[in-house]
Amino acid sequence: MKLLRVGPPGAERPIVLGPDGTAYDLSGRTVDLDGAFLSRLQVTELAQAVARGELPVVDIAGQRIGAPVVRPGKLVCVGLNYRDHAAEAGAQIPAEPVLFLKGSDTVVGPNDEVLVPRGSLKTDYEVELAAVIGQRARYLESQEQAAAVIAGYTISNDVTERAFQFERGGQWDKGKCCETFNPLGPYLVTPDELGDPQALELKLWVNGELRQDGRTAEMIFPILEVIRYISQFMVLEPGDVVTTGTPAGVTMGRPGTAFLQPGDVLELEVTGLGRQRQVLGKA
Amino acid sequence: MKLLRVGPPGAERPIVLGPDGTAYDLSGRTVDLDGAFLSRLQVTELAQAVARGELPVVDIAGQRIGAPVVRPGKLVCVGLNYRDHAAEAGAQIPAEPVLFLKGSDTVVGPNDEVLVPRGSLKTDYEVELAAVIGQRARYLESQEQAAAVIAGYTISNDVTERAFQFERGGQWDKGKCCETFNPLGPYLVTPDELGDPQALELKLWVNGELRQDGRTAEMIFPILEVIRYISQFMVLEPGDVVTTGTPAGVTMGRPGTAFLQPGDVLELEVTGLGRQRQVLGKA
Repeated sequence: MKLLRVGPPGAERPIVLGPDGTAYDLSGRTVDLDGAFLSRLQVTELAQAVARGELPVVDIAGQRIGAPVVRPGKLVCVGLNYRDHAAEAGAQIPAEPVLFLKGSDTVVGPNDEVLVPRGSLKTDYEVELAAVIGQRARYLESQEQAAAVIAGYTISNDVTERAFQFERGGQWDKGKCCETFNPLGPYLVTPDELGDPQALELKLWVNGELRQDGRTAEMIFPILEVIRYISQFMVLEPGDVVTTGTPAGVTMGRPGTAFLQPGDVLELEVTGLGRQRQVLGKA
Repeated sequence: MKLLRVGPPGAERPIVLGPDGTAYDLSGRTVDLDGAFLSRLQVTELAQAVARGELPVVDIAGQRIGAPVVRPGKLVCVGLNYRDHAAEAGAQIPAEPVLFLKGSDTVVGPNDEVLVPRGSLKTDYEVELAAVIGQRARYLESQEQAAAVIAGYTISNDVTERAFQFERGGQWDKGKCCETFNPLGPYLVTPDELGDPQALELKLWVNGELRQDGRTAEMIFPILEVIRYISQFMVLEPGDVVTTGTPAGVTMGRPGTAFLQPGDVLELEVTGLGRQRQVLGKA
């Protein structure tokens, strides 16, 4: 099952897609796709309601798509989680997951404009697999327990300013939290529909040129282990988002390649999760 | 003027204190102390309404106090912002502010229980001056502009697990985002009432023993500069919280001193901002 949010920023409407791609309005069941809704979501029951024609059909053609969850409580990210990306970043293979947070107000829709920050020299892209949390997670004891807290999966573009990340002192956050720096979507795909999250291809193009072409099978720490691990340090709440690191191919790892500029076009694709497209603008 | 939230977790009621300490119910004006309310707050007008007796008096004696702003959109923190603390941490004096984020769900009331995480060896305290943001801040050009986005000030305890922060790889977040790790409050004090934020004393006691005794005059980067600086990298939204670093005296800087254990009692005080008291518990 695919869930999404359609409409202008701040006024999105919750939608569920039927098996044939027909869009149904979920507004009668929830005001938005938020943690409270995800925590009580029963996929089978909702699929039956769709099949029985209990939800109104809506035409969403041409409308803006928002992030598939309303502003997350938090956005927890794993860094350096692919061997080839750790190598290109000049970093060691981590012994345990590297965690950082992004401001959840960096989240925008999958096709919204991404702004190159003022003073930016090194704006870069990162295609990632993201999980949206559906149940509270605290000191999980196994990957099976981790699987049970995931409401669904989506695509994340962990946009990053490398000079702000590495050359301005301290932690990575200065290069991770800039305005519009986290396109998310287009939809939340429930685990039953996606299948094995470690069997996906991730691709990213800049102006039509394929730059990243990875596979989630190459993650150092698979997503269920990542979620189990995070829950030993912090509580994950319904509506939170966890992103799992990017494979090789970022600009930082390609000496001589230009960093992103206003006017550039990013396209991202992950198996079963759809496609994003962003035009770069200027902050 | 002092604003606060009183009642059980998740069901706090907004309150304003009159000049003599009388509590008045703000529920008729806002459901909660959130970014939307803070962004339209007119201190003079509200003070007049109080003086004219337009708000109902309430008895808050004995009731729990919540954080003075409902769960912030983000919690942006400055590290190593006092010379003596940078020295005790074995760090260099930073050339520009060191920033990191805490999960905003770490925020609890000023007197709520703080939980020592499972597996913790080095749970530590940090008394800090915090600013609550009242207006959107993006590429501020001066400290005067920074002053205009501050709704008020409060006390923050930036509780930190040092082994998780420094010995588990990667960024600081593993030691900063644990459950209950950010007591905030007791009240939001508006800038007109607080006066100069760089003329405050900060104190913290563990089981009655004075451990931190600093002055905001000793900050490397004063709070208005911190806010101006942050706005060059990320947008601050109404309801966000900025904390400004801790002076010397944390456990990490006192070799031979025991880290926090369940049953320990923390007390914090900052000039004009009131007092916090937390009993440590077990996660």
